[in-house]
Amino acid sequence: MRIAVLGTGTVGRALAGRLSELGHDVMVGTRDVGDTMARTEPDGMGNPPFPMWAAAHPAVKVGDLAEAAVHGELVVNATSGAASVAVLQAAGEGSLAGKVVIDVANPLDFSHGRPPTLLVKDTDSLGEQIQAAFPTARVVKTLNTMNARLMADPKQLADGDHSVFVSGNDADAKAVVTGLLHELGHTDVIDLGDITTARGPEMVLPIWVRLMGPMGTPLFNFKIVR
Amino acid sequence: MRIAVLGTGTVGRALAGRLSELGHDVMVGTRDVGDTMARTEPDGMGNPPFPMWAAAHPAVKVGDLAEAAVHGELVVNATSGAASVAVLQAAGEGSLAGKVVIDVANPLDFSHGRPPTLLVKDTDSLGEQIQAAFPTARVVKTLNTMNARLMADPKQLADGDHSVFVSGNDADAKAVVTGLLHELGHTDVIDLGDITTARGPEMVLPIWVRLMGPMGTPLFNFKIVR
Repeated sequence: MRIAVLGTGTVGRALAGRLSELGHDVMVGTRDVGDTMARTEPDGMGNPPFPMWAAAHPAVKVGDLAEAAVHGELVVNATSGAASVAVLQAAGEGSLAGKVVIDVANPLDFSHGRPPTLLVKDTDSLGEQIQAAFPTARVVKTLNTMNARLMADPKQLADGDHSVFVSGNDADAKAVVTGLLHELGHTDVIDLGDITTARGPEMVLPIWVRLMGPMGTPLFNFKIVR
Repeated sequence: MRIAVLGTGTVGRALAGRLSELGHDVMVGTRDVGDTMARTEPDGMGNPPFPMWAAAHPAVKVGDLAEAAVHGELVVNATSGAASVAVLQAAGEGSLAGKVVIDVANPLDFSHGRPPTLLVKDTDSLGEQIQAAFPTARVVKTLNTMNARLMADPKQLADGDHSVFVSGNDADAKAVVTGLLHELGHTDVIDLGDITTARGPEMVLPIWVRLMGPMGTPLFNFKIVR
């Protein structure tokens, strides 16, 4: 499948690299290709400069946001939550029309320090805000409840014996996303319901960030035991 | 141990009954004993009237809030979150001084319908509000992330192979609570840190209420796989 991954950070790289490995035709979208490909310093998360990653993943195309959105039959929002709606607007509402848009972002607010709080919660969610801003897109919220490495390759933890959630209004879109999640190695995909249910998994972040200390690693995940 | 369980609803009954079974000297605290023991109708959750439950649990004492708080070396807040601080005030700040207060309540707001939202979240929590209101009590937040039956008897699901969290400022109090959780059958007790970390488990409720539909049962729980 032709897939656009918007975002060049930890999450975008993990998903773009893995989806490409699985045989998909992936284009990473970034605001300014020239600027991104001229980077020589690690990013804010300590990742190597993007051109190093791109050189190691020659099958992954790189384009601007609009090019990527046109390329993708399916579009992954892997940008920071605070910027997501603006990034998708820059990608172009017309290019998103009718497409499955996978939103994996978390609306984290670091302006008051760590641990972060949420910019939107409880009576709304980032997933809903994206769906409202792009009513013709078919938004599915998923994967935001775990570390990027587990999003892309869940079997590296307990052979994949943990859970992932999907929220969205369009049943066909959720079926496409569930298929893609299975390809990545996710086995327990739980359909929470329409896009308003994204409030649930987004509000999981506050315990996630507080678990990282006691766990001593970000490579943990939630399993719904029943 | 002498234990006070404040609250006569689903959670209070489950915990009081089980703690009594385990050999503890339990008193349930309620605002008006005469009123509570005169009930002949099911409560708002559809539970049988409290006197029927009390008759089936003759070892469990029943007293008013102040009597229960005096009785307990350890006090469990099993009231609805919206009422918790007022109930604890009625129990008497002096009687809580120095004691371990286990807060299992969720600050749910049903005033806008279902699923409920949270009265406090993200920058504060009910656990913190209780600790702030009763600074000499040693508050430990725990057990709020699962159904009452699993709180009291976790081994009825997957032989107890799931997780529970503790948050609190006092290490000795958390050790006492962890011991009690082990007695109940909880095996994976995760110490999140001080009482501010209660924000994490309290914000789990929005996904919990949305999982109940797809799960088809409230008898599910989170396991932190690592």
